[in-house]
Amino acid sequence: MGGDGRPIGVFDSGMGGLTVLRALAARLPHERFVYLGDTARLPYGTKSAETVQAYALQATQLLVGEGVKMVVIACNTASAVALAVLQESWDPVPVIGVIEPGAAAGVAATKNKRIAVLATESTVQGRAYARAIQRLMADADVVQQPCQVFVALAEEGWAETPATLATAKHYLEPLFDGDDAPDTLVLGCTHFPVLANAIRRTVGTNIALVDSAETTAAAVADALEDAGAASAGPASNASIRFFATDSPERFARVGAIFLGREIAVDDVELVDLRKA
Amino acid sequence: MGGDGRPIGVFDSGMGGLTVLRALAARLPHERFVYLGDTARLPYGTKSAETVQAYALQATQLLVGEGVKMVVIACNTASAVALAVLQESWDPVPVIGVIEPGAAAGVAATKNKRIAVLATESTVQGRAYARAIQRLMADADVVQQPCQVFVALAEEGWAETPATLATAKHYLEPLFDGDDAPDTLVLGCTHFPVLANAIRRTVGTNIALVDSAETTAAAVADALEDAGAASAGPASNASIRFFATDSPERFARVGAIFLGREIAVDDVELVDLRKA
Repeated sequence: MGGDGRPIGVFDSGMGGLTVLRALAARLPHERFVYLGDTARLPYGTKSAETVQAYALQATQLLVGEGVKMVVIACNTASAVALAVLQESWDPVPVIGVIEPGAAAGVAATKNKRIAVLATESTVQGRAYARAIQRLMADADVVQQPCQVFVALAEEGWAETPATLATAKHYLEPLFDGDDAPDTLVLGCTHFPVLANAIRRTVGTNIALVDSAETTAAAVADALEDAGAASAGPASNASIRFFATDSPERFARVGAIFLGREIAVDDVELVDLRKA
Repeated sequence: MGGDGRPIGVFDSGMGGLTVLRALAARLPHERFVYLGDTARLPYGTKSAETVQAYALQATQLLVGEGVKMVVIACNTASAVALAVLQESWDPVPVIGVIEPGAAAGVAATKNKRIAVLATESTVQGRAYARAIQRLMADADVVQQPCQVFVALAEEGWAETPATLATAKHYLEPLFDGDDAPDTLVLGCTHFPVLANAIRRTVGTNIALVDSAETTAAAVADALEDAGAASAGPASNASIRFFATDSPERFARVGAIFLGREIAVDDVELVDLRKA
């Protein structure tokens, strides 16, 4: 029950992880957060596992240097390929990714044991969601769909435009066609909660939609509780510091779409990880 | 008229520049080419001018090290912010970008002196096309439109899907609405020629479409001629070597969309520019 006032570090390749930060801040209003978006090198979703591991190590080193009590990998691609490396490197600081909570929520939601996962190309290629789901439910049938265009649509803030609905139809209709269609859809990229309404309109109301931002926030809250590491600070709004590796202006502008509130450019500090 | 058999270096942040290489190889079948895609750090279009300059210097250093007789910056973003730096750094090796040829072709095509330019966010912010056009036609009226979703659509190979047409409508209809609409549209990103049919269907046949890949190939042919540096090799197919800074598999797969022919994975050599 000791009040651990150290901040929680949150890391993403860019701004998409702000959907996770938004869920964390809503659930943990006592906590302080430090968010790092590696915007100079985004997106990670099209890069190799080795490259993503090297980038994620540099990025989380900055957070650990800021004295965080926990690191949240708010990036599906980095969670998929770098979680074990990061956990080993920063032990005893706990490192939590978005894959395991999303997989667990998908397993809890499905009735017919058929789960669809939407993700970036590299998350799909690494099969991290499929493996995490099948560890929990060995006979689960997992269909993975890479959705790179969704990333660009989310960054434009096109939550429900005709282009977004046409893209959702292109990616999703073949997945949910037929009698053996999945009954559960995991949004396996932090950008995708922004498009949740368009996705819901495309797949209909009978499909369970799992948002890995919400499920990760719940997992972080549990882990803080278990470790007795929750802050005893005042229950005011969560305080947040932002770091970005490129244009604070773009971070503030596009980030507002994902965080769901304004970000002042002056609150975003530019850092150079290549010097780390 | 001396046959200069050294290769021509072509550089892009990724695979989009292969539309320029395709136009070059078609126009200059005697020449050898070395293409470098900096895929580990793409896209450049959302990064700051300083970051793009640093990346472009590293990338072109590799090409100069390969003994090229000319460097073509087949990337609008790098041409917009890094051309002068590269020309100064690699003098006397000529460096040619895609902006000036595209601007000149736009100026040649317009009758009402109103030109629309489609580009990435950073090309638009740098106003490089607007400045290049207005240097040639001081009273030209230039409308710039950032089109990030087009990049993702082109990389999926969705040349003319409903999502592509809906996106084209979203970006383009407001530009060509009203009596004072532009009569000329410059495709100011090397990805966009892949979407030319969808763009044509959206804007109609009365708008002149300028493809900066074609216009750059013409400028390179002229520059070789002027310098007496054309190859006297046999008029066989142009020979091409490929370098990429990330996944040769993805380079070959997505690159085929832009090059318009198969690329064998074994023909793509992985290089690490961070060690340069």
